[in-house]
Amino acid sequence: MWSRCSLWALRAHSHRYLLTPVFAYTVRFSSGTTATMGAIKTRTVNTTERLAKLRELLKKPENNVKAFIVPSEDQHFSEYPAHSDERRAFISGFNGSAGCAVITLRDAFLFTDGRYFLQASQQLDSNWKLMKQGLPDVPTWQEFLSKHLEQGTRIGIDPTLISAADAESLKKSLEPRGSVLVSLQQNPVDVVWGKDRPPCPHNSVFPLDVKYAGETSQSKLQRLREEITKKKAVAAVVTLLDEVAWLFNLRGTDIDFNPVFFAYAVVTPTEAILFMNDAQDRHSIKEFLGSNVEIRPYESFIPSLRQLIATLGANKDKPMLLGDKTSLAVVEAIGQENAVLIPSPVATMKAIKNETEIEGFRNCHIRDGAALIRYFAWLEEQLNSGVELNESQAAAKLEEFRSELDLFRGLSFTTISSTGPNAAVIHYSPDPDDCAIVKKDQIYLCDSGGQYLDGTTDVTRTLHFGTPTNEEKRAFTRVLQGHISIDTAVFPNGTSGYIIDSFARRALWQEGWDYRHGTGHGVGHFLNVHEGPHGIGTRIAYNSTSLKVGMTVSNEPGYYADGRYGIRIENVVIVREAETPNNFGNGYLCFEHVTMCPIQTKLIDFSILTTQEKEWLNSYHAETLKKVGPLLRNDPRALEWLERECSPV
Amino acid sequence: MWSRCSLWALRAHSHRYLLTPVFAYTVRFSSGTTATMGAIKTRTVNTTERLAKLRELLKKPENNVKAFIVPSEDQHFSEYPAHSDERRAFISGFNGSAGCAVITLRDAFLFTDGRYFLQASQQLDSNWKLMKQGLPDVPTWQEFLSKHLEQGTRIGIDPTLISAADAESLKKSLEPRGSVLVSLQQNPVDVVWGKDRPPCPHNSVFPLDVKYAGETSQSKLQRLREEITKKKAVAAVVTLLDEVAWLFNLRGTDIDFNPVFFAYAVVTPTEAILFMNDAQDRHSIKEFLGSNVEIRPYESFIPSLRQLIATLGANKDKPMLLGDKTSLAVVEAIGQENAVLIPSPVATMKAIKNETEIEGFRNCHIRDGAALIRYFAWLEEQLNSGVELNESQAAAKLEEFRSELDLFRGLSFTTISSTGPNAAVIHYSPDPDDCAIVKKDQIYLCDSGGQYLDGTTDVTRTLHFGTPTNEEKRAFTRVLQGHISIDTAVFPNGTSGYIIDSFARRALWQEGWDYRHGTGHGVGHFLNVHEGPHGIGTRIAYNSTSLKVGMTVSNEPGYYADGRYGIRIENVVIVREAETPNNFGNGYLCFEHVTMCPIQTKLIDFSILTTQEKEWLNSYHAETLKKVGPLLRNDPRALEWLERECSPV
Repeated sequence: MWSRCSLWALRAHSHRYLLTPVFAYTVRFSSGTTATMGAIKTRTVNTTERLAKLRELLKKPENNVKAFIVPSEDQHFSEYPAHSDERRAFISGFNGSAGCAVITLRDAFLFTDGRYFLQASQQLDSNWKLMKQGLPDVPTWQEFLSKHLEQGTRIGIDPTLISAADAESLKKSLEPRGSVLVSLQQNPVDVVWGKDRPPCPHNSVFPLDVKYAGETSQSKLQRLREEITKKKAVAAVVTLLDEVAWLFNLRGTDIDFNPVFFAYAVVTPTEAILFMNDAQDRHSIKEFLGSNVEIRPYESFIPSLRQLIATLGANKDKPMLLGDKTSLAVVEAIGQENAVLIPSPVATMKAIKNETEIEGFRNCHIRDGAALIRYFAWLEEQLNSGVELNESQAAAKLEEFRSELDLFRGLSFTTISSTGPNAAVIHYSPDPDDCAIVKKDQIYLCDSGGQYLDGTTDVTRTLHFGTPTNEEKRAFTRVLQGHISIDTAVFPNGTSGYIIDSFARRALWQEGWDYRHGTGHGVGHFLNVHEGPHGIGTRIAYNSTSLKVGMTVSNEPGYYADGRYGIRIENVVIVREAETPNNFGNGYLCFEHVTMCPIQTKLIDFSILTTQEKEWLNSYHAETLKKVGPLLRNDPRALEWLERECSPV
Repeated sequence: MWSRCSLWALRAHSHRYLLTPVFAYTVRFSSGTTATMGAIKTRTVNTTERLAKLRELLKKPENNVKAFIVPSEDQHFSEYPAHSDERRAFISGFNGSAGCAVITLRDAFLFTDGRYFLQASQQLDSNWKLMKQGLPDVPTWQEFLSKHLEQGTRIGIDPTLISAADAESLKKSLEPRGSVLVSLQQNPVDVVWGKDRPPCPHNSVFPLDVKYAGETSQSKLQRLREEITKKKAVAAVVTLLDEVAWLFNLRGTDIDFNPVFFAYAVVTPTEAILFMNDAQDRHSIKEFLGSNVEIRPYESFIPSLRQLIATLGANKDKPMLLGDKTSLAVVEAIGQENAVLIPSPVATMKAIKNETEIEGFRNCHIRDGAALIRYFAWLEEQLNSGVELNESQAAAKLEEFRSELDLFRGLSFTTISSTGPNAAVIHYSPDPDDCAIVKKDQIYLCDSGGQYLDGTTDVTRTLHFGTPTNEEKRAFTRVLQGHISIDTAVFPNGTSGYIIDSFARRALWQEGWDYRHGTGHGVGHFLNVHEGPHGIGTRIAYNSTSLKVGMTVSNEPGYYADGRYGIRIENVVIVREAETPNNFGNGYLCFEHVTMCPIQTKLIDFSILTTQEKEWLNSYHAETLKKVGPLLRNDPRALEWLERECSPV
């Protein structure tokens, strides 16, 4: 699944089901719930009263600002914010995943991009002016602040919701007009929201056994401490939820699809402090972590930072290490002079999977493939029998098959189950109450994934249950060629995903086709389905991190014919050392695919497939049959389907 | 031919023959001259007296500096400096193409990179300390100044020999130690050099007819004026020699291999001033340029700038446009507050060839191919007859064949004629007095090019006149596959050469092979064989300029087995619109190859060549035979060779 993020920050799926945990230690199931996405999408919220209250707060002497920024971010820059963090949706009524509200004493502006113009125009009431970013002469919200607002404006911001780096560049751009960014003590949107604001999640936290994690928390802390010493720092501050979860081998259920929990951590050469909510399982967590980790309340993080600066004697020459996505609030608490912002060392360590994690990835992808194959076999039978199923009902069946698998702990994102024209909507997710019937004579695109104790999956297959058109076959084949080109790539150590992205597009380009998303994102190990810092794509940020042995990354080229059909073929691959006949330079790398699900040969135009590509396909199918076949002994329909789909071409 | 430049600046071939013009309007021939490169390479110059004199000058009150920087650059940042500009070679004795000397009152340091460690250690006398840049713990010369020199040092520089942009970043890096960069009024090396310094070239200048240039100088000036107006500027200052030559449709013979002349230009919305030496042909140049261009003496450029600032009323809001390679001296004369440094608009215009230039490129490459084919046929016969020829003698014959061609005006660079292990030396050029005998049983790599009134050529072919080894064939085939992959690439408008560079390397990477140079450089039209701003390669600067219709670029992947053999296959290609079946986005581009010379099929390992690649090869050979065959009617040996080499595989 490709992230919806518009900039460097990964962020996705704000329209997801309203979920409640089914049982402890399990990430929520998404089916059978009652969210009404269609309804939400077109509902206009009356924001008159909210805005009036907000403006009163802005004018108060302790704030005294003439504008206030409400971004989409939560304080951990999570891809999926909790409902209690959906401040921009509350204040504006627009609940798309990307957007920023700027409220002045007189006006209210909502900035979003082309994916959300329609939705925003339907959801915003007359108090709001929709700013269509990307259209000519429409400024970004940052440009708006620095070029369109009155000179000398005091602009309020919640410093917990903007990264220090972004705040810094924003401040610089405001300087020429004499405007300033003012960190407010309390977020006025929260005050307006008041009692209606959903409670902050506070769910159970559980340890991930080292048999799945492959490395003890002690060992991870030790490695982080080596980084701290190397950088001549006094501590590292960890603020991203998946980084904290990875570092302490803990998982939670505070955020949909991401098995994380609200937390911060500070690690010094001798200590480790975990700031987390006082959960009912605190005692067992304490026992799991041992005496070398101190647990403090989540709320005490910022005051503790102030105190730690003094006790650790942090200063310019002995700073605290902060990841580059750390909030302004954290930097302000520590003092800019005592902090160094660097690419998060935890993110870098986490991205490289150990052998246990890699073996877990292999195993969970085989099981996950079994569920997918059972689903596609079932779906084909349903369609052949003339059963009417909508996209959401179909997705629910896939979730049912996944939920029967060992070590399953929920989906890793909302299933994209899309027929015909809907498949061309890259970030589509079907509204259970109002979505299309899956048609036998249309392309069906299914992008889905699961969370398992031994890994996280993310797989897309595109199928046609009737007779595809020649154009559909040609497009599918070009996408497949791009997919194979990435899968079989060999590249020197030090190569970034930015450099090899063109391999995925070359075959499509020959036809005058392309796709407007990246080719691959990092995949967490029983963690966020999107993780960095690496990736394969046209975003220049990907050029800063070379692909390294042990990294996971998706391989998902696509093609989207607006209003007609969409194609994407996605496997998860792991970066491995390549065994090349020669070794000019410093070693070569390649990919090992772990996703195991047939690629529909019916959709292939064999006239443009090379011999090598045919051989790849046969080899992939033989491997899939061999690995997944044994898991389908109790589902003859699925096994028969698998054998047919894996027949050599 | 791949440039030897180590950073963004293109620079190459300082070891070239000492040439004298053969006749007016002709760039110099390189054969038959008496330079003794081998001798120069190992001769140590006694620099004791030179350094003593220099230090006296540094201490003088008007200078009062404790260190002086002597870079390789001339005041136009030419790839090939004139002998009178080889200050670093004079003061240090080291005459490699890349290096920088830093002389303090006590020590003398020569910084260069791995290509020149051996040569520099042989050429430098005991006054010098060789700083091997690239080795661990060896600083660059910039780092040396900012980290190793005493605090508070006044460091002298000739402001005409450092770009304003480089000077700016150098100044910043010196600030923390309180050191400063001091622009000296007169270059003390020139004073020491005195009467022994060769005279600055002052050769004839000639007009390039519009039937070759394809656009009048008036039209080019008009387009530049539109840029000036668009940028709200009062003038554009043109400081690079090829840019001045292109803008005024003039050519010269001041610099080896590059048909340019020493000049500057200033263009305003109403005026154009050309600063050039008072040549004997001034009258005819005046007539050619017409009354709208004023000619002033070359030496009056800097004083004129100071005066123009006043008359044009340049200031912050109405600045002068300067290219990003403009020297500090020019910026100091104009005043930083009155200047805007941008990617040179002339370079951008020049890079996109008009239809006449493109047709000229096609034609001169066909003629150039005839000379190459005649040469290879002759060389094969010589080797088969047991004639002993050294690399330089062979190259001379190639030049002889080229010199017989219509519109020929000299070589575009020193021919790289290399046998066996020498072919692995990327920037090899044979020493006429001491070079290897071309061996029948070794790889022979020939990289050469010519200057013609209708275009510039640059072509590399690798041949084996005996029986190649399996490894040589495999390497040749991988290089060929990379070459074909670039030649056949289709890519969206807006794509840079940085993005497609991996196409050229993919096949080599599969073997664990690579090459440590770029894949393609821009090629001037009867101008410098290396030009920017675009290129295909791993240098991130190439990502700033997208490939555009009409640009020329070389396609020259290679592989080099140290001490054994080297392979490179180079054609010049032109960026064209691609006719794709679809058009997702904003149009697609492709390449048209103009170089016409067979690629030796004897060196191909057909077991790894795809059907599509075989078809490409046959089609390329059919085209070459058809286009060049008719030019070989008077050379049956060459025609027979061509027909044999172009036989379908």
